[in-house]
Amino acid sequence: MYTKKYLFDFTRDVFMKMGCSEPDAIRIAEIFLAAELRGLPSHGMIRIMDYYKLWKANRINVKPDIRVVHETPSTAVVDGDGAIGMVAASRSMEIAIEKAGKAGTGWVSTRNSNHYGIAGYYAMMALKYDMIGLSMTNANPLVAPTFSVSPMLGTNPIAVAIPAGEQPPFVADFATTPIARGKLAVAEKKGEKVPFGFVQDKNGTPSDDPAVLKSGGSMLTLGGDYVHGSHKGYCLSAIVDIFSGVFSGANFGPFVPPSVAYLPVLDKKVGEGTGHFFGAMRIDAFQSVSNFKASMDEWIKTFRNAKPAVGHDRVLIPGDPEREKESRIRSEGIQVLPAIATEMKEIAEELGVEFE
Amino acid sequence: MYTKKYLFDFTRDVFMKMGCSEPDAIRIAEIFLAAELRGLPSHGMIRIMDYYKLWKANRINVKPDIRVVHETPSTAVVDGDGAIGMVAASRSMEIAIEKAGKAGTGWVSTRNSNHYGIAGYYAMMALKYDMIGLSMTNANPLVAPTFSVSPMLGTNPIAVAIPAGEQPPFVADFATTPIARGKLAVAEKKGEKVPFGFVQDKNGTPSDDPAVLKSGGSMLTLGGDYVHGSHKGYCLSAIVDIFSGVFSGANFGPFVPPSVAYLPVLDKKVGEGTGHFFGAMRIDAFQSVSNFKASMDEWIKTFRNAKPAVGHDRVLIPGDPEREKESRIRSEGIQVLPAIATEMKEIAEELGVEFE
Repeated sequence: MYTKKYLFDFTRDVFMKMGCSEPDAIRIAEIFLAAELRGLPSHGMIRIMDYYKLWKANRINVKPDIRVVHETPSTAVVDGDGAIGMVAASRSMEIAIEKAGKAGTGWVSTRNSNHYGIAGYYAMMALKYDMIGLSMTNANPLVAPTFSVSPMLGTNPIAVAIPAGEQPPFVADFATTPIARGKLAVAEKKGEKVPFGFVQDKNGTPSDDPAVLKSGGSMLTLGGDYVHGSHKGYCLSAIVDIFSGVFSGANFGPFVPPSVAYLPVLDKKVGEGTGHFFGAMRIDAFQSVSNFKASMDEWIKTFRNAKPAVGHDRVLIPGDPEREKESRIRSEGIQVLPAIATEMKEIAEELGVEFE
Repeated sequence: MYTKKYLFDFTRDVFMKMGCSEPDAIRIAEIFLAAELRGLPSHGMIRIMDYYKLWKANRINVKPDIRVVHETPSTAVVDGDGAIGMVAASRSMEIAIEKAGKAGTGWVSTRNSNHYGIAGYYAMMALKYDMIGLSMTNANPLVAPTFSVSPMLGTNPIAVAIPAGEQPPFVADFATTPIARGKLAVAEKKGEKVPFGFVQDKNGTPSDDPAVLKSGGSMLTLGGDYVHGSHKGYCLSAIVDIFSGVFSGANFGPFVPPSVAYLPVLDKKVGEGTGHFFGAMRIDAFQSVSNFKASMDEWIKTFRNAKPAVGHDRVLIPGDPEREKESRIRSEGIQVLPAIATEMKEIAEELGVEFE
C-alpha cells in the first residue's frame, strides 16, 4: 500500500528525470494517480514502464512544442509534437475551455499525441469552470468492425462530465467495447474463459477464450454481436476514431501507432501520432447556471429513485462507482501489484530516483 | 406500392389541411418520406395517424412561433412552441448550421417540441454545407437503467453525418438500445420470442418474451446486460436525455411526454415538451475541406477493405445499409402496409384530401 502523495512524488520525479518540465511532470503524475484513485489501475502505475520504454526508444518527445495549427472562435487543431499523451491532452482541453469561455463552446482535435490515460480526467477538467466536458481518443487497433475479422479500431473511449448542484457531477467514462482489454488479459493469464460477446476467433466465430487474441482473433464492439447491436458499437467507435484522427490529421483506424515500445512502429502512416477530441460547453451558453444545476440535481435524484431490479438494492448514476472506489482508496491507500512495484524499482534505479 | 411523389404530395396536403404553413408541411412530408426511403417505415407513414390524433386532441401547435430564447456565438436554446417535431427540429438544425458558419461550430438544444422522426435527417442537413452534423432526441420512457426495472429513458437515438469526397458520406443513426421498439411490437404481434438481452420482466429478470412490456417489463439499454456493458448504453442514453432535456429546459427521463394521443398527458412536468440536441461543425474549422474529404475517402476505403468474417462477403460503412435500401425503394416504389393505407384513407376522408 502506498499513499497518494508518495506515488505522486515518485511519478513526478521519474518524468522529470526523463526530461519533462516540472509542470508537465506534475500533470502526468496527477493523471496517473487519478486512474489509480478512480479504480482504473490499467491506466495507472502499470503504464509508467510503457512510457519509460517509449522514452528510451526515443519514441516520445519530453520537450514538446504543443501548438495550435488551425482555429476558429470555437475550434482548434492542436499538434502535440509527439508529447506524452497526458501533456498534449491536458493542454488541448485547456484550449477547449478557453474557447468555450468566449464562444460558448470549444472543440479541439489533437494530433501527434500518444496514449493519454483515463478519458474521464480531461472531461472532468471542465467541471470547475461550470462547463460540461467531453473527451475521446483513438487507440491502437484491437477491435473488429461488425462482420469483419480485421482489428481496425481501438477500444476508443468516450467521457462526458456534467456538473450538478448539491449532487456530485454526472461522469460517464467508457470504452466502446463490452469490456476493457486489461480484463481480457487478466482472464487469459489465469487461463479462464470469458462470456461470449467479448472476442471472436480469426474466422469471426464467437469465442469464450481470450487467448484467441494471440492467434488472429479480435475484440468485438459494444453490443457484442450483430443481433444485439454490435453495429451501433462500431458506429460509436468509428465516430471517436474520425473525430480524433481524421479531424486532426492524426493516424486513424488500423494505422494508430502502438502505445508500447515492444510493438514496432507501423510501416504505413496516414497522419501524425495518436489523435484525441475534446469539447467544453459553458452551462450558461444554454441556461442560467443555477437553473441548470437544480435540474441536474433533480435528474440525478429521479434516477437514483428508480426501482431496483430484484437482487439489487439501488440504481447508480454514471460516476458513482468510481467515486465510491476513490473514497475507499483514498482512505486505505493505493495497492500496487508486486510486479509493477518491481518495474518501478527498476526505473528508479536506472534514473536515480528514490523508491522503497 | 406508391411513388415517392404521390406520398409526398399526400403528406404535405394532410398537414396543410391541419393548418400547417406550406413550407412546414413540405418539410414534414420530406422527413416522413426520408424515413420510408431509408427503410425506416416505423418513422414514416405509420406516424401520420399519431400526429393527426395529437392534432385532434389539441396537443400539438400547427402555427408555432419557434424562437431562440438564449444564445452565444456557438450555441442556442430554441423553444419549439409545441410544434410538430419535424418543424422545430429542422429549424433548430438550421440555426446550428448558421452558428457554425460564423463560430466554426453551432450547438442547439431544443425544448417544447414533439417526436421528430428520423434522427439522421437533421444530421444529414449539414452535409451540403461541408459540415459534420449531429442530432439526438429524448423520447417517452420505455427503457430501464442498468439494475433497475423502471422505464426511465426513451430509445434515445444518436445520429452523426460526416461528409466524404468521392465516397458517400458516413452516416451513423442508431437508437441506444439493442433493438428498436417497433421490431419488438412486430415480434409480439406474431407471438414470437426475441433473443435475450432486449427486454426484462417486471422483476428485472431477463426475458425472451416481448409481451412482458405490457406487464411491467421494460426494454434494456445497448449492451443488453451488465456483463456485456449495458451500463455503457445507459450512459449514452442518459447523455442524450440530458443534452436534449436538461440543457434546453424540456422534460427529461420519465417525464418526457408520450408521442401518441392514446397515452394521457403526464401529471408531472419538469420542463416543456420533448427535447432535442443538434450540432454542426464546419469541416474547415479543423482543416481544409479537400484534405479532410481525401482523408475520409481513405478512412472509408480502408474499412471497406477490412477482411470479412467467414460467411460474410463484405464489411459495411455506417450509412451503407440505408443507402442500399433507398436505392432499391426509389426504383421499386414505397410499400405501405394495408393497415396504414386504411388509416391514411380515413384521414383523407375526414380532412377532404384525395387518396387512392
